[in-house]
Amino acid sequence: MASKNATKVTIGGKTYTLSGNESEEYLQEVASYLNGKIAQLRSDEDYRNVPFDMRNVLLQLNLADDYFKARSEIRQLQKLLEERSQDLSDLKHELVATQMKLEAASRSSVTT
Amino acid sequence: MASKNATKVTIGGKTYTLSGNESEEYLQEVASYLNGKIAQLRSDEDYRNVPFDMRNVLLQLNLADDYFKARSEIRQLQKLLEERSQDLSDLKHELVATQMKLEAASRSSVTT
Repeated sequence: MASKNATKVTIGGKTYTLSGNESEEYLQEVASYLNGKIAQLRSDEDYRNVPFDMRNVLLQLNLADDYFKARSEIRQLQKLLEERSQDLSDLKHELVATQMKLEAASRSSVTT
Repeated sequence: MASKNATKVTIGGKTYTLSGNESEEYLQEVASYLNGKIAQLRSDEDYRNVPFDMRNVLLQLNLADDYFKARSEIRQLQKLLEERSQDLSDLKHELVATQMKLEAASRSSVTT
């Protein structure tokens, strides 16, 4: 990371000084999310029997799982958005066709 | 994790046996994502000077950053979806109003 701001964050009980372009507010938010995930893992009884190096991997898998779920939500939202855009386009065509019919009907009503 | 499937995955050069409800395909996809992030960090020259315990935290921060970016994209997509839904609702009202005018115009055209 490029050195711009220096922010102290506490993750998993240890304090680190991070330097980067991110705001302190953002880094604290990220640290808070990580601490929540760590606390969640530690509250699991099975976790106490997990070897130390495996604990890091378990946390990483958990974080990746959150990311993959978010990506899946993004794909669903993109699909919905495409459907809505198609509906909008169909409706616009229908509206224009109806407006043209109305115009023609108004004209014929005036000429009679 | 509940013990259902046992899947061997290699993460950061080490092989782990994971047991859980997730499919092997999904776990391999997650492992591949983690290995990509690890390779990305290792390719950074500064990373070689980072102490070992800090490396895990750097990876975790990177993963959390991906998740936060995805969440931000979700919020943007949800906002867009709300806007499209509002546009759709407005357009439906306009279409119904135009259809009613057309009906009235057609009626008056028949009666004259």
